[in-house]
Amino acid sequence: MITSTSNLQVKQLIQLQKKAKERNTQDVFVVEGLKMALEVPDSQLVQTYVSERFYEKNPAFFDESRPVTVLSDRVFESVSDTRTPQGVLCVVRQYHYEIEDLLGNIPCEAWDAHTPQSKIGGIIRRGANAREPLIIALENLQDPGNLGTIVRTAEGAGITGVLLSRDCVDLYNPKVIRSTMGAIYRMPFSYADDFRQALRTLKCKGVRLFAAHLEGSIPYDEETYCGPSGFLIGNESQGLTGGTAAIADARIRIPMCGQVESLNAAVAASVLMYEANRQRRNAGGKKFRKEGIVS
Amino acid sequence: MITSTSNLQVKQLIQLQKKAKERNTQDVFVVEGLKMALEVPDSQLVQTYVSERFYEKNPAFFDESRPVTVLSDRVFESVSDTRTPQGVLCVVRQYHYEIEDLLGNIPCEAWDAHTPQSKIGGIIRRGANAREPLIIALENLQDPGNLGTIVRTAEGAGITGVLLSRDCVDLYNPKVIRSTMGAIYRMPFSYADDFRQALRTLKCKGVRLFAAHLEGSIPYDEETYCGPSGFLIGNESQGLTGGTAAIADARIRIPMCGQVESLNAAVAASVLMYEANRQRRNAGGKKFRKEGIVS
Repeated sequence: MITSTSNLQVKQLIQLQKKAKERNTQDVFVVEGLKMALEVPDSQLVQTYVSERFYEKNPAFFDESRPVTVLSDRVFESVSDTRTPQGVLCVVRQYHYEIEDLLGNIPCEAWDAHTPQSKIGGIIRRGANAREPLIIALENLQDPGNLGTIVRTAEGAGITGVLLSRDCVDLYNPKVIRSTMGAIYRMPFSYADDFRQALRTLKCKGVRLFAAHLEGSIPYDEETYCGPSGFLIGNESQGLTGGTAAIADARIRIPMCGQVESLNAAVAASVLMYEANRQRRNAGGKKFRKEGIVS
Repeated sequence: MITSTSNLQVKQLIQLQKKAKERNTQDVFVVEGLKMALEVPDSQLVQTYVSERFYEKNPAFFDESRPVTVLSDRVFESVSDTRTPQGVLCVVRQYHYEIEDLLGNIPCEAWDAHTPQSKIGGIIRRGANAREPLIIALENLQDPGNLGTIVRTAEGAGITGVLLSRDCVDLYNPKVIRSTMGAIYRMPFSYADDFRQALRTLKCKGVRLFAAHLEGSIPYDEETYCGPSGFLIGNESQGLTGGTAAIADARIRIPMCGQVESLNAAVAASVLMYEANRQRRNAGGKKFRKEGIVS
């Protein structure tokens, strides 16, 4: 058991929690809490740390053949990013996706097995609309909670990949990780050094890009997202830059009542992603109904 | 100018920022920042406080006949709830709505004047579907950011009122206020001592209640929300209590792909509110098209 905060491993953990540069140099990130720890894919797990109290109270956790290091409660608190630590954290290998990986081509058993929408009238659908590319592209998003929430909703809505401009908040930031509620392990994502070039690449691959814009002329629900589609979401206060919005095929807006000037970025992204999800489910349903498979 | 933190007004301000009890006793709350200060309705404003620096840099702000007290920068920082204060905060009178006020009967000029959806093909619609009751009812919601974001989205989506169980986080909490982005001034809301009784009252008034439930049998977009409707949203980790869900007319779920177990509460609420908004806009549009007013 490690009982000193001057221990080298402990010092490194604190650096990993605080500094993106340190995470990137070591090519790892840190996840905290029981749910996040249990969901780490074996292939990505580097090391698990638990507090003394957690170790005593959760013997079942240690049935598995995972390497575990025990820290005294006081030391664990010093490395934790939360106010009331659950007593377990893992060091996890970073992911490295290419832009092609955002298009839904990755075999994803977990996704297929758990997708309710893949079952219509008892018939399991695979591929087809359900895995048509559906991308969310984020420019200069700054709030960690917003990014984590978007990644979490993205998995729920069936997004195939998240593209981020280099100046977005770090997805491996502990606050982002926490808000993803585990979606970080499953959602392909990629930071683009040249964001606009990456968007043009997506267009070349047939993805139709929709810019969420306060001055968009088309209500978001009047466009169709059943084909390969991507949503562009901008910075929390400035929105999308003009140059980026100009690359989009269409500018859409979310109609707003009252005196509301804009929606929270994660809310706007979620409304759009679930509109695409709704259309794709309905298109799938209609298709099957048309073919007489489902009454 | 007040230069001491032991000044009585300063001490009171700090109490108002920190304690719900103090806010309720004095029947006021505190808003911070230029946007929030500018939007305070005259009838609700009690007192404005600015920092010395703000006072010097924003002479235009003081053209209005608002009573202003200047605090030294150091004193202002001690009363501010934010890390980088903008230098202006207001004490504002609390709102007192009855449950009937949540049904969209309040004359709301601001709402009508600013509602894009009230204009279809150049024809201004008032009342009708646009102001059919549309309520969001929150049970034991705990996260200040979630509550503020829900109130903000609610105004945008055309919700007529927000019902809260007594054990929800305080809407006058500074973090909630900040996340509302001003919607606090315009969205009718009411805390119910007996939440379930309040829900039954809404049902008696013809409001159809939909419980957002992970085990709901109906995908949310297969129900109709054009009539008087209400959405029930539960606590962030536990969801709705069984007794509350049992009061609802239907249990709906938001379909989720992948291994996502649930969505963030504010995201789930927003997806539902905007589905109702979408249906009402489309129903309005079709109605007018049918009548031959809009081609």
